Amino acid sequence: MPHIPVPDDLPGIRGLMAFRPETGRPLSELAEALLVSESPLSRGERETIAAYVSHLNACRFCRDSHAAAARHLLGTQCDLVDAVLVDPAAAPASAKLRALLAIAAKVQASGRLVTADDVAAARAEGATDRDVHDTVLIAAAFSMFNRYVDGLAALTPDDPAAYAEMGRRMGDNGYAARRAGTAASASEPAR
Amino acid sequence: MPHIPVPDDLPGIRGLMAFRPETGRPLSELAEALLVSESPLSRGERETIAAYVSHLNACRFCRDSHAAAARHLLGTQCDLVDAVLVDPAAAPASAKLRALLAIAAKVQASGRLVTADDVAAARAEGATDRDVHDTVLIAAAFSMFNRYVDGLAALTPDDPAAYAEMGRRMGDNGYAARRAGTAASASEPAR
Repeated sequence: MPHIPVPDDLPGIRGLMAFRPETGRPLSELAEALLVSESPLSRGERETIAAYVSHLNACRFCRDSHAAAARHLLGTQCDLVDAVLVDPAAAPASAKLRALLAIAAKVQASGRLVTADDVAAARAEGATDRDVHDTVLIAAAFSMFNRYVDGLAALTPDDPAAYAEMGRRMGDNGYAARRAGTAASASEPAR
Repeated sequence: MPHIPVPDDLPGIRGLMAFRPETGRPLSELAEALLVSESPLSRGERETIAAYVSHLNACRFCRDSHAAAARHLLGTQCDLVDAVLVDPAAAPASAKLRALLAIAAKVQASGRLVTADDVAAARAEGATDRDVHDTVLIAAAFSMFNRYVDGLAALTPDDPAAYAEMGRRMGDNGYAARRAGTAASASEPAR
């Protein structure tokens, strides 16, 4: 049971955003900027990093919803995210993405663990400043989203079909529905 | 040295926000909503929670800047934040704030550690739903900010006077300067 009152029909972070739309709005905008807006990383790759960090944080809601979004966006490469969750070093990812996933894992544990050598290894595989920046901020942001969801014991569905549906919606619509939201529209913060 | 190019005169997260204003803007808006906008917790109490979580994450830039903001905002109670950084259980804080700091420490480690008993203990000291929500999200958000700053090795001043000045500016002006920012104004993302 959640630690604060949230609507029964809004699982995970959506219920928390409905509880306080004033913080929900910048959280949605951050997710949109990180996971949907232009980046040298594809949307499927970014959702894979998000699912991987959520997996390391043992946050089921975020892991399963973002893994579903990654599968939806990766198309014929939809097996990538599941392979990453098992073992990123052995996953059929590009060498660049594998190096970035190693940085993401360090950020999940502590930002202080990332070394110049880690960044140089990613650059040797073609990573740019933006790849490095976006990877670190996605890993940092999911270290927040995961703690927000689990720290308030947000509603977490058991049915895998619920996550598949969420992943399709996140992949098709992104996270910006709440961007233009007013307090009045916050009772329906996602499409 | 930072892992990505940032302006020499923008320490900490400000340099990172200048590197990518599209993510800097929602990050600033989140800080403003959490630390400045209306809350049952005073601004000084919220900056104290932020400094405490940053201390647990060993993020010097965030700890010292938000501790300075807390001292500036707490006025005659300015010793509170330093006592909390030494031992929150023994600090001259209200029983409610001590209970909320215990929740913040659990969120810093993992959201999954927060129990219904932890929340009940805070409620027994007068904490409301909003107190609990805001504490969990502040602790979660600084688990992000700390990782962003250290994961990219952001510029971290050594001079304590630099932090005192930052704390005054944060206390007096808040974090919303960047709210109306455009790409053009992002070269000067803070006042």
